[in-house]
Amino acid sequence: MVPMKVALVGTGLIGLGWAVVFARAGHQVALYDADSDQAESALRRIREILPELARLGLIDKDDDPAGRMMLCDSLEAALAGAGYVQESGPERLAVKRAIFADLDRLAEPSAAIATSSSGIRMGAIADGLEGRSRCLVAHPANPPYLLPIVEVVPAAWTAPEVVRRVRAFLDDAGQVTVLLNKEVDGFVLNRLQGALLHEAFRLVEDGVATVDDVDKTVREGLGLRWSFMGPFETIDLNAPEGVADYVDRLGQMYLDFALQRGAPEPWPPALVETVERQRRALLSDADLPKRMAWRDRRLMALAVHKAQADEGPGS
Amino acid sequence: MVPMKVALVGTGLIGLGWAVVFARAGHQVALYDADSDQAESALRRIREILPELARLGLIDKDDDPAGRMMLCDSLEAALAGAGYVQESGPERLAVKRAIFADLDRLAEPSAAIATSSSGIRMGAIADGLEGRSRCLVAHPANPPYLLPIVEVVPAAWTAPEVVRRVRAFLDDAGQVTVLLNKEVDGFVLNRLQGALLHEAFRLVEDGVATVDDVDKTVREGLGLRWSFMGPFETIDLNAPEGVADYVDRLGQMYLDFALQRGAPEPWPPALVETVERQRRALLSDADLPKRMAWRDRRLMALAVHKAQADEGPGS
Repeated sequence: MVPMKVALVGTGLIGLGWAVVFARAGHQVALYDADSDQAESALRRIREILPELARLGLIDKDDDPAGRMMLCDSLEAALAGAGYVQESGPERLAVKRAIFADLDRLAEPSAAIATSSSGIRMGAIADGLEGRSRCLVAHPANPPYLLPIVEVVPAAWTAPEVVRRVRAFLDDAGQVTVLLNKEVDGFVLNRLQGALLHEAFRLVEDGVATVDDVDKTVREGLGLRWSFMGPFETIDLNAPEGVADYVDRLGQMYLDFALQRGAPEPWPPALVETVERQRRALLSDADLPKRMAWRDRRLMALAVHKAQADEGPGS
Repeated sequence: MVPMKVALVGTGLIGLGWAVVFARAGHQVALYDADSDQAESALRRIREILPELARLGLIDKDDDPAGRMMLCDSLEAALAGAGYVQESGPERLAVKRAIFADLDRLAEPSAAIATSSSGIRMGAIADGLEGRSRCLVAHPANPPYLLPIVEVVPAAWTAPEVVRRVRAFLDDAGQVTVLLNKEVDGFVLNRLQGALLHEAFRLVEDGVATVDDVDKTVREGLGLRWSFMGPFETIDLNAPEGVADYVDRLGQMYLDFALQRGAPEPWPPALVETVERQRRALLSDADLPKRMAWRDRRLMALAVHKAQADEGPGS
């Protein structure tokens, strides 16, 4: 890994998460936000996160990644000398188009420029820019320093060399990149999440199971396998002869489930209220922030577990 | 927990998994299989599993659960004195109907009788039997000693008292039961799995992502959260104001994804071949059994991790 300067533009939850990823990997991280209060608050939050990661061995105890971060007063200062730019601004096309026009004009000629957008295609953001061939989507999960996945989504005109370089850079930084060969709304992660959520909402709507029982079915069953195998490997190992054998046995059953559902419909307000009411009975409004911190601690502990298990025999 | 005698009828993969669950919990376990070779081979496999569980602290090192298991030559011997009966025979309605007729005739009057069926409703299995009110589905994931979830699915005529008793019994044995309020094909677990698989197959079919990249997106992202939270808690904690706020922000996006898909279709043979080919390139036929053993070791390590994390601060 060759240390370089990375520019982070936008320092909300995702931007500060990226800062942890890149500084942990040894890069110099320049943070810029049009709202300077936001940038300072991001740095404060990062200084809370780093000791927690160090305590769990997720960063080297003797290292000080925060020492490789700097807040910049101007976009120009952040971009000067940066070989990689990650934009994590508001999720609105007009805003992103304006930011990318600036980024393409001001960034080093050799810099790759990525957006964290979870839904807006690069084809719509940088079209018409002179340097559009160096622009692409690098969509992380949140927080990126605990969930390694990054969906890399080039536009039709993104240079293959840039795609390769960005993937190698992110993989080297400890992330796990997947390449989307076509721009598709929601990419892979949110499409898969949406598909499962549709069925989950319908099961609650039909009175088959409570919200908590749906969650239990995943966290005490399905989700355990998926946390280290994914859905295809899971079914590949669930029939004696592999995945084609599995589909042969169960494909019709899964088709029947889908056919029973009919056309997709919006989740009606009364259903959303039901889910909200059941969740608030399990977790009060006031306890939401505490539980979010719990989630992050669990993700940290799981990251430690996975790192150990990946090194284990026969992994 | 009051130790009792449990009768297991059918000793394939699921039956032997139940034997580990109930003997680990301190119960006497009587195993019966119409094929006595099968029963003996189950016991041999159990004697391989137990030391692995003991090594990881998932059963007490000083305990010998196998000492509480006995093979029975006849159904009558297995059922005599048993307070709970778990049937794990072939997944065919006619076979299950015949077995349940015998079970209801021969089991102790006070015994509850459950089937492990993953798809056949108890309403179809025990209808017409004198003791049908004590019959219900208790569908485990595989293997049940590592995946705690059990879907409890009563028929319309199953006695509520039996449902309560069976859930308490299974929860006491270390499982996590969820109650289905209606009999629905595939129950909750496989319906959720099917919904996600449909989207996963379509993403591969459309050339958006490879099989391995879909798996990575889940195992390095989505599946990590789902392994300890489930889908509803995940989105509840992913918007500042909880799940209704989340749906307000992203419900339309998820509806759009579903509408783009149109009517469900069978997975075409060419697509299944593509998935099979990609999986075999990642894992040869010959290595399938080795990888299944790896999966079980990973599930064991994950069970240890979850047990520790559940005891941690703020859990």
